[in-house]
This record gives sequence, structure tokens and C-alpha cells, in this order.
Amino acid sequence: MLYFQSDYIMGAHPAILDRLQKTNFEATAGYGADQFCSAAAQKIKAACQCDNADVWFLVGGTQANAVVISSMLKRYEGVIAATTGHIGAHEAGAIEYTGHKVISLPEHQGKLDACEIDRYATDFYADANCEHMVPPAMVYLSHPTEYGTLYSKGELEGIAKVCKKHGMTLFLDGARLGYGLMSYNSDLTLPDIARICDVFYIGGTKVGALCGEAVVFTKNNTPKRFLTLVKQQGALIAKGRLLGVQFDTLFTDDLYFKISKNAIDKAEMLKRLLCDKGYRLFMDSPTNQQFVIMENTKLCELQKNVTVGFWEKYDDTHTVVRFATSWATTNEDISELEKYL
Amino acid sequence: MLYFQSDYIMGAHPAILDRLQKTNFEATAGYGADQFCSAAAQKIKAACQCDNADVWFLVGGTQANAVVISSMLKRYEGVIAATTGHIGAHEAGAIEYTGHKVISLPEHQGKLDACEIDRYATDFYADANCEHMVPPAMVYLSHPTEYGTLYSKGELEGIAKVCKKHGMTLFLDGARLGYGLMSYNSDLTLPDIARICDVFYIGGTKVGALCGEAVVFTKNNTPKRFLTLVKQQGALIAKGRLLGVQFDTLFTDDLYFKISKNAIDKAEMLKRLLCDKGYRLFMDSPTNQQFVIMENTKLCELQKNVTVGFWEKYDDTHTVVRFATSWATTNEDISELEKYL
Amino acid sequence: MLYFQSDYIMGAHPAILDRLQKTNFEATAGYGADQFCSAAAQKIKAACQCDNADVWFLVGGTQANAVVISSMLKRYEGVIAATTGHIGAHEAGAIEYTGHKVISLPEHQGKLDACEIDRYATDFYADANCEHMVPPAMVYLSHPTEYGTLYSKGELEGIAKVCKKHGMTLFLDGARLGYGLMSYNSDLTLPDIARICDVFYIGGTKVGALCGEAVVFTKNNTPKRFLTLVKQQGALIAKGRLLGVQFDTLFTDDLYFKISKNAIDKAEMLKRLLCDKGYRLFMDSPTNQQFVIMENTKLCELQKNVTVGFWEKYDDTHTVVRFATSWATTNEDISELEKYL
Amino acid sequence: MLYFQSDYIMGAHPAILDRLQKTNFEATAGYGADQFCSAAAQKIKAACQCDNADVWFLVGGTQANAVVISSMLKRYEGVIAATTGHIGAHEAGAIEYTGHKVISLPEHQGKLDACEIDRYATDFYADANCEHMVPPAMVYLSHPTEYGTLYSKGELEGIAKVCKKHGMTLFLDGARLGYGLMSYNSDLTLPDIARICDVFYIGGTKVGALCGEAVVFTKNNTPKRFLTLVKQQGALIAKGRLLGVQFDTLFTDDLYFKISKNAIDKAEMLKRLLCDKGYRLFMDSPTNQQFVIMENTKLCELQKNVTVGFWEKYDDTHTVVRFATSWATTNEDISELEKYL
Repeated sequence: MLYFQSDYIMGAHPAILDRLQKTNFEATAGYGADQFCSAAAQKIKAACQCDNADVWFLVGGTQANAVVISSMLKRYEGVIAATTGHIGAHEAGAIEYTGHKVISLPEHQGKLDACEIDRYATDFYADANCEHMVPPAMVYLSHPTEYGTLYSKGELEGIAKVCKKHGMTLFLDGARLGYGLMSYNSDLTLPDIARICDVFYIGGTKVGALCGEAVVFTKNNTPKRFLTLVKQQGALIAKGRLLGVQFDTLFTDDLYFKISKNAIDKAEMLKRLLCDKGYRLFMDSPTNQQFVIMENTKLCELQKNVTVGFWEKYDDTHTVVRFATSWATTNEDISELEKYL
Repeated sequence: MLYFQSDYIMGAHPAILDRLQKTNFEATAGYGADQFCSAAAQKIKAACQCDNADVWFLVGGTQANAVVISSMLKRYEGVIAATTGHIGAHEAGAIEYTGHKVISLPEHQGKLDACEIDRYATDFYADANCEHMVPPAMVYLSHPTEYGTLYSKGELEGIAKVCKKHGMTLFLDGARLGYGLMSYNSDLTLPDIARICDVFYIGGTKVGALCGEAVVFTKNNTPKRFLTLVKQQGALIAKGRLLGVQFDTLFTDDLYFKISKNAIDKAEMLKRLLCDKGYRLFMDSPTNQQFVIMENTKLCELQKNVTVGFWEKYDDTHTVVRFATSWATTNEDISELEKYL
Repeated sequence: MLYFQSDYIMGAHPAILDRLQKTNFEATAGYGADQFCSAAAQKIKAACQCDNADVWFLVGGTQANAVVISSMLKRYEGVIAATTGHIGAHEAGAIEYTGHKVISLPEHQGKLDACEIDRYATDFYADANCEHMVPPAMVYLSHPTEYGTLYSKGELEGIAKVCKKHGMTLFLDGARLGYGLMSYNSDLTLPDIARICDVFYIGGTKVGALCGEAVVFTKNNTPKRFLTLVKQQGALIAKGRLLGVQFDTLFTDDLYFKISKNAIDKAEMLKRLLCDKGYRLFMDSPTNQQFVIMENTKLCELQKNVTVGFWEKYDDTHTVVRFATSWATTNEDISELEKYL
Repeated sequence: MLYFQSDYIMGAHPAILDRLQKTNFEATAGYGADQFCSAAAQKIKAACQCDNADVWFLVGGTQANAVVISSMLKRYEGVIAATTGHIGAHEAGAIEYTGHKVISLPEHQGKLDACEIDRYATDFYADANCEHMVPPAMVYLSHPTEYGTLYSKGELEGIAKVCKKHGMTLFLDGARLGYGLMSYNSDLTLPDIARICDVFYIGGTKVGALCGEAVVFTKNNTPKRFLTLVKQQGALIAKGRLLGVQFDTLFTDDLYFKISKNAIDKAEMLKRLLCDKGYRLFMDSPTNQQFVIMENTKLCELQKNVTVGFWEKYDDTHTVVRFATSWATTNEDISELEKYL
């Protein structure tokens, strides 16, 4: 069987497992106050070229979104997201569970538009009844988006400018950040993102770790008593080393970037293959997720040998199918896939 | 000055104040267990022709929405509303504060469409990832809507059918219910609404009371330990008599319907007047709120003598203005308004 | 029948009903922005002799507690209360519903002790694990307490000093404040309370109003965007005039104090009567609630003519019974009660 | 340096790391639907001798407590815990954050007493005002307790009987369950616990895993749509295999029990050593945590070579110190410790 349904089907990059083994009997303090978290944070700060960065480690993406949003917003504030944004559509209402409204704005291939955000916020404050409404105090975007698309540096700076204008926090969900940074089409570097955003996270779960997201507050703007807030949401783990060791490994010798690049290289091979075979792309994604419109009969046949993700029904006879490559995808996987396409 | 900006600018219908005075020194139990609440509930049940109705009294509309929705939904469930629905747009995130997502569907002159609800729910359960999403478990609609429009009996039954199909509760926000029932265009009676909906409320605040909304659970479907839930949300008042006396008065000798009809009669006079004067209606509302597109210069002049509600900017030189009549509007108000239009 | 079970069994003081009637057709803005709320707030500020006071009106006591506590605390903070404090024991978990812990400290005839609060806070911050715990950030006390007892000025100042030392907000629940201020034993005035506390409220529901509590932030320390917060909790009413008119009346010509004094005078008569008749007081309350230990057989007989409150079982043959006087209790009520004791 | 401050200072049992490595490139479904979670659940069911058990894996203890409690309670219900219970004292208000009250009852060496629970619940329902209060609907106990003490089978059955009588759920927090089961003093087996409790969890984090707690609903009583609830609280991880592999390893060849027994053996050696050296035990704990009263000067000296946990100040010259053994403690650790005591 060949596995292309997602980027979290394998365990972890072997270097991570090795490191867990090597450090296993080094004693540590609990709750993130260990030497590995500390080293990992230093390396991430360096990679971000951001002296004012505070780095914290959380276990998963939905958790990171809920913790960051609910700890940075005041009780009555809401967060803007694209209609397709993960927090609005696919996190079981985890944001609303913390009491905050997700304000949906239109998506354009999964992305928000700076002008539309500006207009929303401008209209909001112009409304005589705005005290009866939820003020937009944060903009949430995912990069890459849920459709694998990317913001350009200009687009991200445009949104940041609008955020500044209206006093909003800019939060970038980087569950797949490595795949965005290594995309052939990206003009955004990690230091760019650290400079432009107020807070973002570097996804580990989907980029080679067993679990873990590194949250970066870029302006020494960690919410007061953040550890307590994290614990209050059940998100503080006793053996913080599990996260520290993984991120320390990922940010040693550029491992995070190298394995991300592997996924991109394989995705580009895959895309070429799909196009060569005459498949129509649903969207031209520059990252590790490729969305293809496939005839249902072909899909049925394919599934005997290959697992893929179902994105949505396209029409009565076609389906939008997702192929995801990852840090673990090999040339052999792609070659073998060719046989079944 | 003439007042048309809203339907809550005056105090209460005089009969209510008289009744409060007459009953003032009758001793009562607290927290809604008094003789007046009990009598009012009986009269409302009779007016609804609904033996299975449980009637509870709450203080205001946002409170009623938050209490009903959060007590009827399971923790992980969400409520569907039109994008213009009061709970989504104008209640400061009160529903999200209780942990629940408001799922926005398109509005058509303020109304939801049964087919669109059906499609949303059908697609939801067809999605392989639906366990990661917020299940739509309730449909919220306002009647009249925020634009003063009304559902027909057929439309409401259509929505109810979709609700039944997908196991959703149908909740009707009747903050202005009287004005809907007395509209010349309405084919829905109070017993119809009680029969079709699972829960709804009869608005008092905007229809002659000082405060108060009568929540009707139509199928003996009051959530278990509802009094505790109401108190937990800070919505239980010690002197329940304040609500009981008001609704008992409103539902004696059809007062609620008579004063609602007054608002409709005056609104129709107003509409004719506006049309005669050549104003363009923004929407043809059959209830007590009339939305007119007015030149800004004219509006400025008008405001010297008349208060109106600003709905939204229409274009650079025009504004959508709301005129609201109420139980308290008189023929003289309309005549005098004529001078300034 | 004679009614002594609580202080909310009658309607409102007649002057309030008169005033509601007289002002009924004066047009007002909604949501508390009316002339009556404004006038009432001015009078309350004057009565408090507190230039920095912000006054807001809410509908009921549990609501006031939930709104004040949850809007003043940061998300991770808790509030200290006596084990018998209303928020801990009798409000259906309304504070926890807003996400905050009520930290119980021992009660002494319903009161907190400054030294015990100090010790708790000192120990808290001395604990190496305090980041894993809920920091005490507010002290809640009721005055009079649930047992009708009162803090002396010295005691209240002692608690305020401890609050200042540990950065805690001092919040006084004055649901029965009038009865405390008018007690023969009280050395605390309204200006004292405004000076010593950070926030408190002046109870209307139990002191002559139909409903309503006047929340006073004494240091211009109203939480940012308070109106939005109030609405988010479903506590903002459209016709704010209902509260404004009532408090404007209560704070005109010292009505609030005069009617409170009536309750105290009657309570003292009652207490003397009870002692004369040989009843044993459960607690020597200086306010309008009197707690008596009564034989169950006597209680049964009494109840044929008099309603009283059951406080708790005393032993197998005795019950602690509450007699409450109020603004509405008359000399005749006391005389007639004498017959049945 | 010697490490005795807690039972989570080392990584994981080597067998777990080996297994993670061996299974690393086996493809799995996400979110707990993998073969390892499934195998682990089967083994745990077998170890519990409980056909009706549903097993779910969560990441940490506070998370498990918050998820179990908030998913099993109705919105208005509360949970009883000892004053020293972890959820009441040391979880940053995580339970209150979900809206539920923790009802504190007295602790007896960290344990709840069945009679006191019974009395509380009986009094609660006898109170005429109980609808205004938080009904106790669950009993939370930790086993071993925060003081290392254990419930006997009789005690646990006694509490279960009281729970049944009052319709309460019995929930056992087994963050250190292995150390309880392997205690020389325990007459409770894992099947006993599964039979007696409604829900409990088997702690991994403190017993050899990197992270993970196995929640066991013992009566096929998993809350409806539990996966959605878990995700809503940010507690669902994409690579569920991380938990599955660990618990599958722990429940293969009785590893969980064997490594737990190691901790107990070492704790007994430690206890003998402490007594021989003339130290006074603060409490006679039968599990892996030993609490000793130590002179501050001695403690200072000790800390040059040994890390310990500070429990509480005993008096001005003494401190209560915790020594924790674990799955990883060796005979050499104990021998070396002897030198410094």
C-alpha cells in the first residue's frame, strides 16, 4: 500500500527518536523548565533572527490555536478568519468553547484579503451599535492555508498594516510552516514571519515530530502568567522534555528545513506526474498538498493500492482528492505511485 | 420632538403599570413561583392552544437567546442562524460566551431558506471529518426578522421539516412577535407557531412591557433543572412577579394583540405616507419597522424634529433609515411626522 | 396570613410605582443611556461622596456578582469568599460558569477574617508551585452577610489593607446594603464603603425596588468596554429606564435610607419580642434578618398563620428559622405576630 | 546529583522508545483510529477484566481530569473532591474553566470519607433551596492520593455505594495508579477498580511513559460524541499512535505492573533507610512518595547532592520534604542516597 492521505501517517524523523533515546536518562525539571526546551527555544529564536521572541511548546495544532487566541484576546473580543480557516471549520468549535467568536471573512484560495479585513474593521467601528457587537481584535491566518496556498511577503505585510491600523493582533497558524517556507514559490523567510506577525507557531506534528508546535511570541508579548493559562486549558505537560528534545533536534543543522524541502521536492514531482497523466488540478498548490479532480471510477481503482484524502465532492462523477507528501515521502513512493495513476 | 428610532423608547402600556400598583402588596413567593407567573403561563398556554407548553419568564432578548440556546444544546453542538440574525450580529458574542458556535447561513431579506439549511446539514453529515466539526443541532430564526420581514406558514413548516429530518431543534426569537402576528400579511397564528416550533418566545420588552420575554417550550421539553440553569446564567430574578404581572396583563383581554395591531396600523399609515412623499423603501416590510433610503441632506433636516434609527450607509449621499412604530404610536404622531417628511 | 419569610415578598415602594407612571411617556434612549439612569447615577455618586465613582445598573444580585467578578478578574484568577458567601453556596455555580474559581475561606458568623485572608495569600505566593494554582485576585464579602451580621469599619479597613498588600480587588455585595447602613450597630457609612472598597453594589431588589442593583466602581475603575461585557452576559436590558427611575426615586430625599431604617426598627421590635417570649436566637443579628431556634412543634403551629424561612435543621426537635423584616413591614405586622409566637 | 524530587524526571522506559522506533514507519490513520491504540485498548480491557470498558488515550493528567469531568457532567452539576484533591488545589482552575464547581469536602490523609459524602449529598437534597445550588453529581478521588495514601477495597466500595445512592458518577484519578496497585498494602486490583468505578484513568506520564493517560469508561458509558468533545478541548492529537504505542508496550508482558513494583520496592527501602536514620515521617505512605519532616539545616546540606520536593513548611525550623521513587529508580540510587542522609 502507498500512503498519500495526509502528512501525519508516519512516526517521527529518525533523528528525533535517536535523540529521545540518547537523552532519556538525563534528569530534567518538569513543565517545560528543562534544558531541552531551553536549548530549542534558543535555536528557534536564532532561526527567527528575533531577539524579542518568547518561545513556548504545546502539543498540537487545535490546542495551540485555542491557547494562543484565548490568552491574547480580552473576553469580549473576536478573531477574524477565512471561512475555510481551520479554527472556523475543522476544530470542533474549540475557539467558541473558550468563549470567543470566530468572525468569518471570505476566502480566496484559502487566503484572507487585506482590503476586506480593513473594510470589515472600518465598518465595525463606524457602526453606531458597535458596543453591542464583537470587536475584531485578532486576525488568524494559516500559512500554508488549508488549500496549500501561500501568502506572499507583500500580502502578509499588507495584512499586518491593516492589523496595526485597527489595533489587531496578527496570528499565523504554521501547522505546516516548514512546507510553506521551503516552497519554490515562497518569498517569505522565517525571520520575515517573525518580524511581520505578533505571534505564530512552527508546526512539528506534520513536519517530522511525534507531536508538538512551537509558539513564538515575537515582541516579548507573551500573555501574563502564560504557564498558568496553559495549565488552565489542560495543555501543560509534565515531561516538557518530550517537546524540547524534538524541537531541539529539528532546529539543529537545519533539519526542519531539510525535511520540509523533501516534501516540497516530492510534491513537485507528484504535480508534474499528475499533469503529465492528464489530471486536472483543483488548485495550483505550491506546497505539499496537491488537490486533484479525479473521476470516481478511477478513484475507486486507485484506492486498491493508494490511500488519498477526500476533500470534497466535485460533481456527480468526480471528487476532489488530496495527495499529501511529507518529510517521509521517498522517490520510490512517487515512482510506485506512477504505476497506479 | 417626535420619536421613531425604536420600539422601546416609552415605558409600559398603562394597564401594566396599573396592575403593578394594584397587586403591589399581595405577598408572593420568589423566583417565579408566584401566582402571577402561574396565571400568565396559563393564559399564554391557552392563547397558544398548546397543552404541552411550558412557559418561563426571562428579562430580556439577548438573555432569552443565550439561556434557551445554551440550555438546549449539548456542549459540542452549534446553532444555525442567518448572517443578519440577532444572535450572530448584535449580541456581543453572548452565544459564543456560553461556548457554542453560531453557524451563519445566507440571509434572504433577513430570512433563512429551508433548502439551504437542508443542504448544509446534509453536507455536514456526509463529510468524513464531521466528528471534527460542530454539528448543527438547532435552527434559530427571528420572526419578524431584523429587517421586519416575516416567514409564511409554508416557509416555517418547510424549515421545521428540515429540522425534524436532521434532528435539529427549531427556535423562534419572537422579540417582536406581536408585530409579526398582527401584520396584514401574516398567515401565521400564535397556535401555528406553537405547533411548528420546539421553542420560541413572546417578546414583551418591545411590545408594551417594561421588560420581559415569555419563553414557551412547546413539547413539555423544558431542559432538565431549567431553574438552576437560568440562575447559573444570572437570569433568575427574585421578584418574578414583575414578569408575571406584566404578561398576565398582556394576555388578558387580548391586550398583547390589540397593542401590536396598533403598531401595524400606524406602520402602514407611515409606509403610505413615505411612498406618497416619493421616498424609496429599502425593503418592503410588513411589520412595525420601515426601512427607507433617504438623502443625507434631507435626513439632517428631519432630525431637527424627528428621531430615527440609522441602519446602514446606502451610498455616499444616502442612508438607510429605520422608522419604528410601536404599541405607543398615535395617529397624531403620524400626522405630525407628515409635516417634516 | 403574616409574611416574614423574606424581604422580597411585596412589590415595590409606592413612590417607585408612582414615578414609573409619571415618567412613562417620556421618551428615552435605550440600554442605560437615558436621563433617569444618568440622574440616578449622579445622586448615588453624591450619596457616596465619591467623585471617582462610576455607577451602572444591573437587574439582580446573582447577575451583579457574576458580571462584576468575571469582568474584573483576569481569566486565570479566582475570588476569595467565606464558605457561607452567597456566590459560593447559593448561586447555582454562576461564578464557576464564567470560568472562575471561588476560593472558600472559613466564616465567622458569616464574615471573613483579615488575618486569614492575609495568611492565605501569603502562603499562596510562597508556594513554589503557585503558577499551577489559582491566584486569589479579589475578595468578595457580603454586607450584611447571609447571617445578617455586619463588618465594622475597622474590620473592613483591615481587609482592604490586606487586599492592597496582595494586589487584590475588594468587592462588597450589598444586596441588603440599606439594612446594614441603617443598623443601630453599624459604624460604616455609604461614603466609608465607597472609600474602602474597589467596587460594591447597592441592592434594590430587597430594599424597595421591583428589581435592580446599582454597581459602584469607586476608583473610575470600570472594566474597559463594560457595556459590551454586560451584554455578552445577557445582562443589558433595552429599557434601562426601569432601573434608572427606580434608583433615582430611591436616592431622592433619602428614601433608600428611610425605608431601610423601617426594616431595622421593625427587626429590633421583633427581636425584643422573641427574647421576651423566651426564644433563643441562633445568632445576634443587628440587621433585618433574625435567626431563631424554634421547637418543631411550635414551628408547625406558627406556620398556620405566619410564613417564615427555614434556615437549617438545628437538632432532631429544633429548626433554625429566619424572620425577615423589610421596607414594607408595619407595626401592625409585628403586633399581630406577637399573638402567634 | 541524585534525583528524588518527582516521578517524572527521566524520559520513558526503554522498551517504549524501542517500540516507537520499531513501529516508526508503519503507516497509521490519525486521531486515535490507529492499530496501536486499538491493540492497547484491547490489552487494557483484558487487564481490567471488563468487557464493558471503553478505553481512550489522552496526553496528560490535568487534561484527562478536565475532559472527563466536563464531558460527563451536565452543565449545572459539580464534582466533589477532597480539599487536597489535585483538581481543587493544583490544576490552575482547569475544572472551573470548563464551568463546573469543585465542591470541597474534608480530607483524611488525602482521602475522602464515604459517610461525609453521604451526609453532604443527603443534606443537599434536603435543602429547600437546592435548586439554587450546584448538585453534586460526581465524586473525584485520586488513588494514590496527593499524599501517597491508598483507599482500601472496603473504602472504595463504600464510596461507590454512596455514589449509587445519590446518582453520582465515581471517577478515580489514577495518575500514579501503578504505584497504588503494586503497594504492599493495597487490597485493590485493577479489575476491582474497573468494577467499582464508573470511570478512571491509568497514568502513563508518571509511570514510564513520555506522556499519556488511558481513560477507562467501565460501563460502556463514554459520553456521546466523545471524540468531538476531546477535540473541542484541544486534547485530540493527530498522531494518536504516540499514545497507542506507549500503552501497548506498557500493557504487554505486565510491564506497567513490573516497573510500578520497582518504584514501590525502592520506596520501601527508602522508608526503612529514613527511619533507621531517625527521620520522622510526616505521613506513613504505602506508595512511591515518601514525606519526611526534615530540619532546614539538614535539608540545605542534603540539597548539594540530592534533589527533593518541598511539600510544605512544617514549622520555623523544619520542612516537609517529598522523596519520590519511580520506575527508573535503582538500587544504586538508594545506596548513594544513604551517604547523604
